[in-house]
Amino acid sequence: MTPEDFRKHGREVVDWIADYMEQVDQYPVLSRVEPGDIRAQLPDSPPLQGEAFDQILEDVNRVILPGITHWQSPNFFGYFPANTSPPSILGELLAAGLGVQGMLWTTSPACTELEQHVLDWLIEMLDLPATFHSSGDGGGVIQDTASSATLCALLAACYREQSDNPRDTRRLGIDSWQVAYTSDQAHSSVEKAMMIAGIGTDRLRVIDSDENWSMRPDLLKQQMDIDRSHGLKPTFVCATVGTTSSGAVDPLPAIGAICRDHGAWLHVDAAMAGTAAICPEFREMHDGLELADSYAFNPHKWMFVNFDCDCFYVADRRPLLRALSVLPDYLRNRASQSGEVVDFRDWHIPLGRRFRALKLWFVIRSFGVQELQQKIRSHVEWAGRFADWVSADDDFELVAPRSLNLVCFRHKGGDDMNRKLLDALNDSGDLFLTHTQLDDRLTLRLSIAQTSTTLEHVERAWAAIRGTATELA
Amino acid sequence: MTPEDFRKHGREVVDWIADYMEQVDQYPVLSRVEPGDIRAQLPDSPPLQGEAFDQILEDVNRVILPGITHWQSPNFFGYFPANTSPPSILGELLAAGLGVQGMLWTTSPACTELEQHVLDWLIEMLDLPATFHSSGDGGGVIQDTASSATLCALLAACYREQSDNPRDTRRLGIDSWQVAYTSDQAHSSVEKAMMIAGIGTDRLRVIDSDENWSMRPDLLKQQMDIDRSHGLKPTFVCATVGTTSSGAVDPLPAIGAICRDHGAWLHVDAAMAGTAAICPEFREMHDGLELADSYAFNPHKWMFVNFDCDCFYVADRRPLLRALSVLPDYLRNRASQSGEVVDFRDWHIPLGRRFRALKLWFVIRSFGVQELQQKIRSHVEWAGRFADWVSADDDFELVAPRSLNLVCFRHKGGDDMNRKLLDALNDSGDLFLTHTQLDDRLTLRLSIAQTSTTLEHVERAWAAIRGTATELA
Repeated sequence: MTPEDFRKHGREVVDWIADYMEQVDQYPVLSRVEPGDIRAQLPDSPPLQGEAFDQILEDVNRVILPGITHWQSPNFFGYFPANTSPPSILGELLAAGLGVQGMLWTTSPACTELEQHVLDWLIEMLDLPATFHSSGDGGGVIQDTASSATLCALLAACYREQSDNPRDTRRLGIDSWQVAYTSDQAHSSVEKAMMIAGIGTDRLRVIDSDENWSMRPDLLKQQMDIDRSHGLKPTFVCATVGTTSSGAVDPLPAIGAICRDHGAWLHVDAAMAGTAAICPEFREMHDGLELADSYAFNPHKWMFVNFDCDCFYVADRRPLLRALSVLPDYLRNRASQSGEVVDFRDWHIPLGRRFRALKLWFVIRSFGVQELQQKIRSHVEWAGRFADWVSADDDFELVAPRSLNLVCFRHKGGDDMNRKLLDALNDSGDLFLTHTQLDDRLTLRLSIAQTSTTLEHVERAWAAIRGTATELA
Repeated sequence: MTPEDFRKHGREVVDWIADYMEQVDQYPVLSRVEPGDIRAQLPDSPPLQGEAFDQILEDVNRVILPGITHWQSPNFFGYFPANTSPPSILGELLAAGLGVQGMLWTTSPACTELEQHVLDWLIEMLDLPATFHSSGDGGGVIQDTASSATLCALLAACYREQSDNPRDTRRLGIDSWQVAYTSDQAHSSVEKAMMIAGIGTDRLRVIDSDENWSMRPDLLKQQMDIDRSHGLKPTFVCATVGTTSSGAVDPLPAIGAICRDHGAWLHVDAAMAGTAAICPEFREMHDGLELADSYAFNPHKWMFVNFDCDCFYVADRRPLLRALSVLPDYLRNRASQSGEVVDFRDWHIPLGRRFRALKLWFVIRSFGVQELQQKIRSHVEWAGRFADWVSADDDFELVAPRSLNLVCFRHKGGDDMNRKLLDALNDSGDLFLTHTQLDDRLTLRLSIAQTSTTLEHVERAWAAIRGTATELA
């Protein structure tokens, strides 16, 4: 494909995507294919001769599209969102066209510096603690996901422990007397990080949450005291701002104080909810964040930046670098040796990295802070309305306090009824919801964050939920 | 930005990229900015109001472009490549437009099934062992990078050990009696994986290589025997096909036999060189691969698929799943529970994942196997010519046997001369080379793999190298 062919086919794909944006609300949100349906339509062997691009795009329509669950549908209310937006797509396109690999500052200075700069912008936009700013000992970096950010935070915590002898953990591995803590509502990535870091889940203390599904700091302190009395070292706490199940917020001031007392690293996972801090009225959830050693939120969830884009901040980058720096000779270069630059390869698991800051920059500049605030406010307002409709209905109930854009609710008819209702709604194709367990009861979740969702979509969702429940009853 | 605006600006970005493809050979390959130059041109604060896209694209030209080291230049011969191509860019664009998050089969069946299918195609294209095929106990998955693949392989190896009690490693962590092995030429990611997995670098045995920089299996066996006699367990070996420094190939048949004897997991890292196996005449390097438990190569290096796209294969997926599976209630779904589908979230570190198989599929279909072979063959042939020129020149020498598309060479004038030569060449902007250390001598590396590189670019590179050396002498 020549550059001239690329011009032609590039326009076709751009038009395809614009059409998709305009029509995505008409597709069944959850894909209806059965296991193996997609593969059955693909040839067993790759083509020997190149094929025309038109043929490929035709197969996208014929084979791929029916196998898509439409995360970008305005009727997608499942999980947490992975929303995107036109400027983000253009940023990703440009990054692919430049084809930059930004492992070192020198391998494309703009890739590193724009990332530092935009992550500093986000500190201002979300009013995050100044300790995270690149001008001090800390700084921000783009990770693929909050799971990876949690793992990096855990590693930094474990590597910080031996500050008197920085080579120890590197050489001898992570000591088994190091203990981590999180709540019973934390994301599964905390458990996964314990497995990856070789520590094992027995060293993860799962602290009970209160009636609002927030971590109980009294139990955290109690457990840390017990562990310490057994000769163990409380090393890492992962608190959540906006849990996956119900959007609960852990009490950071109390947790942070306990962490300081015990010298434990506090990581705050605000993967979904963090974006809301762009609106001053929602910043209360971040109270106490100045006590955190690290923080992550995902613009690829609720800030209209397409996956993957997790923003990870540390207050002190040295333990992170200690955990993740390896310098082979073939990566040495003048700029790195000058000490004047940051090489982001030392800030995460992979070595290579693409130019993800472009899409973040495009989104912030194209929307502007005020339009981003306006969209977030609308989502929260609509979630509030939905919660009111649930509360006012005799057949339904809220299962948790509505948290920002997330509503946890259920039909009063029991787990079987809720399971049937969920399946019927998702099978209808008209909307997509997912579930969780709260108080051992099957709970429906409605998460409002898609770029093109309007109040009308939320109203239709509620009408469909009520109507389907009535039919099933 | 409305869908209509997106059509307009999308075309502008497509044209921008097409222009860039046509002009990239005219830019200095290595960016000339100084630390801080990019940031100094960016406003301290994000805009409150949205900005016009034209303004953003103008800033790409004014601020970003000078800060790019042009990996896509035909004169880029540094590191290993991160090449891309028009169909790959279109695949990435479409993935961003669909905005699919494929953590589970059900969250977009096409994302999982196309990935399985194309990774099976690659088994046929590269003539990889059938054990890696998705129809058996094994299978392939796209990872971001070979570093992550190495980490996942190490974890699977450690988790395989306790097969009689699959909960042990999960709960109790990775045992400190597990030992890993690699050669002194292996990629730094092996050391990094040992640090991330909490095992520590003391448990990584670095085996000496021979005069061709290939791992010495006699020393590997000797070290394993010693470790075993000390009550340690040889668990993991990372062999390399195409080392970073010199493209050396470790002897897989001998290494594989030793691994079988000791029950150690053999991972083969062919990040760069693997792609060459698309040509039957280069497949010898994979001899013995049928003894491997896992294998990785990067289409984002030498197969015209833009970063990130590492293909990681396992012969038995169960240890990998044991190391990386966590199933919270909010991810349960009918398809997963049926046991009929694969959920790729359990095959890597992150939970979320984007639709990377699209670009791989686009590239294979758009080029076709034969054109891919032709391009690889040309790169190898040109590297052979370049090596001949070096050998025939009185002032230069080869430092290692030419390996596929990689030539390691040096000026005979000593390390200082080679350092000056390297800096002068890279400062000229006419081409970009990087270095390594072989036999404690500074060695220049010329890696030929860019999509648009032709023999003429290689000829000009050699002329520049000779001419600059003459000037410096």
